[in-house]
Amino acid sequence: MSYLTLLECAKCKERYSADIPRNLCHCGGPLLARYDLETIKNNVSKSVFKNRQKGLWRFKELLPVSNEENIINLGEGDTPLLKASSLGEELGMDNLYIKDEGLNPTGTFKSRGAAVGVSKAKELGVKTIAMPTAGNAGGAWAAYSARAGIELIVAMPEDAPDLAKKESFIYGAKTYLVKGLISDAGKIIAGGVARHGWFDAATLKEPYRIEGKKTMGIEIAEYFNWEFPDAILYPTGGGVGIIGIWKAFQELKELGWIGEKVPKLIAVQSEGCNPIVKAFNEGSETSEFCANAQTIAGGIRVPKALGDFLVLEAVRESKGTAVEVKDSEIIDSLKLLARTEGMLVCPEGATLVAALTKLLSNGFIKQDEKVVLLNTGTGLKYPSLVDIDLPLLEVNTEI
Amino acid sequence: MSYLTLLECAKCKERYSADIPRNLCHCGGPLLARYDLETIKNNVSKSVFKNRQKGLWRFKELLPVSNEENIINLGEGDTPLLKASSLGEELGMDNLYIKDEGLNPTGTFKSRGAAVGVSKAKELGVKTIAMPTAGNAGGAWAAYSARAGIELIVAMPEDAPDLAKKESFIYGAKTYLVKGLISDAGKIIAGGVARHGWFDAATLKEPYRIEGKKTMGIEIAEYFNWEFPDAILYPTGGGVGIIGIWKAFQELKELGWIGEKVPKLIAVQSEGCNPIVKAFNEGSETSEFCANAQTIAGGIRVPKALGDFLVLEAVRESKGTAVEVKDSEIIDSLKLLARTEGMLVCPEGATLVAALTKLLSNGFIKQDEKVVLLNTGTGLKYPSLVDIDLPLLEVNTEI
Repeated sequence: MSYLTLLECAKCKERYSADIPRNLCHCGGPLLARYDLETIKNNVSKSVFKNRQKGLWRFKELLPVSNEENIINLGEGDTPLLKASSLGEELGMDNLYIKDEGLNPTGTFKSRGAAVGVSKAKELGVKTIAMPTAGNAGGAWAAYSARAGIELIVAMPEDAPDLAKKESFIYGAKTYLVKGLISDAGKIIAGGVARHGWFDAATLKEPYRIEGKKTMGIEIAEYFNWEFPDAILYPTGGGVGIIGIWKAFQELKELGWIGEKVPKLIAVQSEGCNPIVKAFNEGSETSEFCANAQTIAGGIRVPKALGDFLVLEAVRESKGTAVEVKDSEIIDSLKLLARTEGMLVCPEGATLVAALTKLLSNGFIKQDEKVVLLNTGTGLKYPSLVDIDLPLLEVNTEI
Repeated sequence: MSYLTLLECAKCKERYSADIPRNLCHCGGPLLARYDLETIKNNVSKSVFKNRQKGLWRFKELLPVSNEENIINLGEGDTPLLKASSLGEELGMDNLYIKDEGLNPTGTFKSRGAAVGVSKAKELGVKTIAMPTAGNAGGAWAAYSARAGIELIVAMPEDAPDLAKKESFIYGAKTYLVKGLISDAGKIIAGGVARHGWFDAATLKEPYRIEGKKTMGIEIAEYFNWEFPDAILYPTGGGVGIIGIWKAFQELKELGWIGEKVPKLIAVQSEGCNPIVKAFNEGSETSEFCANAQTIAGGIRVPKALGDFLVLEAVRESKGTAVEVKDSEIIDSLKLLARTEGMLVCPEGATLVAALTKLLSNGFIKQDEKVVLLNTGTGLKYPSLVDIDLPLLEVNTEI
């Protein structure tokens, strides 16, 4: 079912067999999965996906799992892509859409990466996976590892959200809190990996998480009948999503399933943690470590992403841009989206509305363009961001 | 697109036109939507649903909305139906399935009822909806009302979960807390309805919520290729889901889309609030009010359901049964399901695993039967049910 051929370094292009578990290239670059696109082109029609059972595994030819029995499925993918008419009206736009990744199994788009990453790990005979996490990835990998019967070791900063700790713990992952940052958690995990031979599944250190994320790009293309919207806005932390979406576009182009036009990919960050925005504005190919990174949107508090050069490449080649927003704008956007569209999004997703407003006023996006906001998770995971002050009534009060 | 013809009282069978907003029958019975099934049978093939865009609106012929423009869609329905192989193995079962309603827009199956209820209210020109709620229904109706541009008034007990209050509030519903029970909230709403002419959307007081819930039954039938599993277990509070599923079976039978065999419908309650279980065991047609109702599963803390007679009818006619479980068993089941299947379910959904264990040991369910557990919501909404105790590491610790 899979047409996976090998792994290729995104930096030095060195190639590796995909038959054993792999992490980074010897040059330190992340490895990307490559497929026999020529054979897919000759044997598979893009119309076949529509009639398969819903979920990201519909795109199995472009995913790395060879044997269907290894698929760990919790219902991930095929999230709704909804027209946002009321919000669009407030912004003077007729063609505004939101793709809601909050409807994935663990409430975020991390499920896509975990589903494919864990399934492939199972196929390759991995017994123990280890990873540092700031929160949602840990929950997702813990869920899929539990279902796969694979042991998972997780380390996260002690100030990670309570819910993330609980998710990891209840799914049975061996969960450590660390008095430090995610980078400290990463060092502890790397040490354990070296000592015990666990499989390191840190962001971009394993090649298949991207493959799961790339299905977001395929779904968007298919939704618009294999033509594209003018722009996709994406909240950018580690950037695996935007890299994955860009990778999807390259593959779809090579397959001849889409034309030359691709959407502008727009990376959105917070003012308190904006390494990609800085690098983009400075014309750099990689980002600088962002000291004292701080934002209420924990998922995009990534001071220096391993795949920063790939994010910047995707943004530039797609003729997109990078935008930063304030934390206060995130909260306002979150409220606006709830009130106008009935969608309670995660703070990372809420950045996109604030960013869109900026891009409309500086003219980078025109009001008549077709735009997709990619909300990465449900706001149900962030109740502390919502303050309430409600009237308390005695019984028998008249309202 | 809809073949809705009229509304019929579930008690006295009196018929009403469906052209204006309606609540209960003059006899106090709930009204049920009726369709021109004969014409559907002649004009619609059950195979058409598979190739439509996913979501419960695939089944539009069997839903009450006439004009597609009135549909308020947040991606509800078509939730995953997953094989639970690991849990099945623990229980000695080869054919255990879980339908995961947690992947609905507001994290619970309440989205189905709200989607159809709010859409039909919009079609009928309703400007303001009012309802009492214990929690999740309020969140769901608030989300869909926001998207529809309909005003919503919600009253809930002051001890309702914080998250439910926040959901209702942030979606812009006028939200009142009440120093009392949901019945007190209901009285305050009923007063407002009488004074202001709001539309009362309390459970079963409006006829279309059931129609949304019934799509769970259609989806299960379609999933198993229009044959049925042997049993469906359902956590029963107000019972709208089980009534809806039963209604789906009747309609599918009349359409000739399924045979005579239907699954045993099994109502699961908590020992602390078990009116349906008592009534079932006593052979009564209705339930008695359950005083001092108490359980950690708030969604099934319903001391006396308006539709109790319909729940009991569905259970009896399907040759099902009613089972009660302890709160401690709910917590154990929740943990078991997370560890074995990677699914974090709501406490109401967790009752089903405990109930299944009982039914296997008393022989009501055989290990070789095909069984579906209908989990009604995501456990992400109930973090307080998960206690954690995690090791805290200094940086540079070796693990």
